[in-house]
Amino acid sequence: MSRAWARAHANIALVKYWGKRPGPFNLPAVGSLSITLEGLASETRVEFDPNLTGDAVRLDGRSDPGTTTKVTATLDLLRARAGVTWRATVESVNNFPTGAGLASSASGFAALVVAADAALGLGLSAEQLSELARRGSGSAARSIFGGYVEMARGHADDGHDAIARPLLAGAEWPLRVVIAITDRGAKRVSSRDGMAQTAETSPYFSAWVEGAEADLAEARVAIAERDFDRLAEVSEFSCLKMHASALAARPGVLYFNPATIAAIQAVRVLRQDGVPVFFTIDAGPQVKAVCLPEAESRVAEVLAAVPGVVEIVRTGLGPAAMVLPEHARC
Amino acid sequence: MSRAWARAHANIALVKYWGKRPGPFNLPAVGSLSITLEGLASETRVEFDPNLTGDAVRLDGRSDPGTTTKVTATLDLLRARAGVTWRATVESVNNFPTGAGLASSASGFAALVVAADAALGLGLSAEQLSELARRGSGSAARSIFGGYVEMARGHADDGHDAIARPLLAGAEWPLRVVIAITDRGAKRVSSRDGMAQTAETSPYFSAWVEGAEADLAEARVAIAERDFDRLAEVSEFSCLKMHASALAARPGVLYFNPATIAAIQAVRVLRQDGVPVFFTIDAGPQVKAVCLPEAESRVAEVLAAVPGVVEIVRTGLGPAAMVLPEHARC
Repeated sequence: MSRAWARAHANIALVKYWGKRPGPFNLPAVGSLSITLEGLASETRVEFDPNLTGDAVRLDGRSDPGTTTKVTATLDLLRARAGVTWRATVESVNNFPTGAGLASSASGFAALVVAADAALGLGLSAEQLSELARRGSGSAARSIFGGYVEMARGHADDGHDAIARPLLAGAEWPLRVVIAITDRGAKRVSSRDGMAQTAETSPYFSAWVEGAEADLAEARVAIAERDFDRLAEVSEFSCLKMHASALAARPGVLYFNPATIAAIQAVRVLRQDGVPVFFTIDAGPQVKAVCLPEAESRVAEVLAAVPGVVEIVRTGLGPAAMVLPEHARC
Repeated sequence: MSRAWARAHANIALVKYWGKRPGPFNLPAVGSLSITLEGLASETRVEFDPNLTGDAVRLDGRSDPGTTTKVTATLDLLRARAGVTWRATVESVNNFPTGAGLASSASGFAALVVAADAALGLGLSAEQLSELARRGSGSAARSIFGGYVEMARGHADDGHDAIARPLLAGAEWPLRVVIAITDRGAKRVSSRDGMAQTAETSPYFSAWVEGAEADLAEARVAIAERDFDRLAEVSEFSCLKMHASALAARPGVLYFNPATIAAIQAVRVLRQDGVPVFFTIDAGPQVKAVCLPEAESRVAEVLAAVPGVVEIVRTGLGPAAMVLPEHARC
């Protein structure tokens, strides 16, 4: 087979990934812990063709040189493993806004490596796929798996131990996620640039890195014990610390827009009123409200009424990345 | 004389004060640098009366036990110096919203100590008044002076060296300040509580403290050289670092509201367009835009159009706290 088709789901970190270790392998400065989301998916078709002279990459129907360069770098890793030099045609579509802080690079690179692995018949393990996906986008390592996922910081210089592993299947604790989209456009400062600026100039970056392991340990326990309040506390703490580390950069990196603040305030009021919900926010202005199933309708209703919220997406926990049958849509 | 009347002006820190040193003297964890504002004033009348059995304190026409307790504690310091036990009637009015992040405690306590000093005939020096004002409210130490003011962190346990001193008269570099008021109400978390929560729980607090002296040095140079861009950069850096340290507390302390973010974004766009303006924000949702005089009209126009901005106050740099003639309004 020289072509294959795969689907992977976006994920949101509850214990955040922010900042890289030095070196060429896109290594995270901190471990992270995420949930994979059912409703936000990338579908990617990869077809290797000996007659091509370069990779032809289309994301949501469009080509751009920056995306092609990054996809080529990831495909090169798989080509090297397969011992081939074939270029590829890559078609990828997201069913949600791209580059807007909704983890499209996570689902996109996870789908890419799974499809390329299948197309080349490599039969790599999930751990190997996780490592390859990380090279394209740090958070993509987590989207190889479904449900609750932990990504190790790792210590090796070559990054072989900086991979994700599944902690718990989504069905074992089926939290719901209400996403308040406050801006459909691509963010002005990419995650990659925001991380670099934070690591280079924020006086808080080292304290951010130092605190990560304790947050991971706390979140792990909360998930193992299905302790919602504890998961809520450590998740909001990690989220605000991440944004605070960026805000303290010089100049400050600010991903919030007015509706982000209004949504945070709305979630806080709900939680004070006893509703089991907490917020998390990635490098972008969207607010993800994580809640117990019985709270979902109320949370969605309240967030929909927040000024500046343009769309509500309701979703649950999603599965691991998967190869799709050949007859699927392309 | 057993009564006197004084006026003091609010100030905003460009290099922020946030956090206290341990001990009973309300000692700051960091030095700070501020500008005293012409348009935001407290006027306070103090009359000592041997026949009173307790201090009678009215702020903006209202009495409340919390304010009275704090005023009594400050008056006790002045009574001890004068060797008297007379209780006092205190009437204080602010010409701007109280407790809303507009430094009403700074102007209020500065006016209180200046009036009480005059009423008791103590004739204390400005340095002594600054120290006494600090005991009531850390930032009040700065409102004893006009124009550009630096507040030393100090090192003595008794706080005698934690006082403010004037750096430059306002007329020497007459910056303008456009205040975008986004909420006239009192903030939910007082500065005092927000500082304590940050110092106790924020992993970024020690880095915040460590960075203060470098920021002060940079701001001092910028003021001495009338270097607006440099003052803008260090001021925004200090402001965002302060808020970031609070945001990283557990739970996070968030003083911004949606309009705060919108106003920050508006100021950033103006500055990118070459308009000489920067923002600073104290423990509250109001945004203070500091600008060169030629930019004031444009800045006021833009901020007035920001959704959620309910009032614009335009002001310049104000004078030191002063005793008012007896025939002034009470």
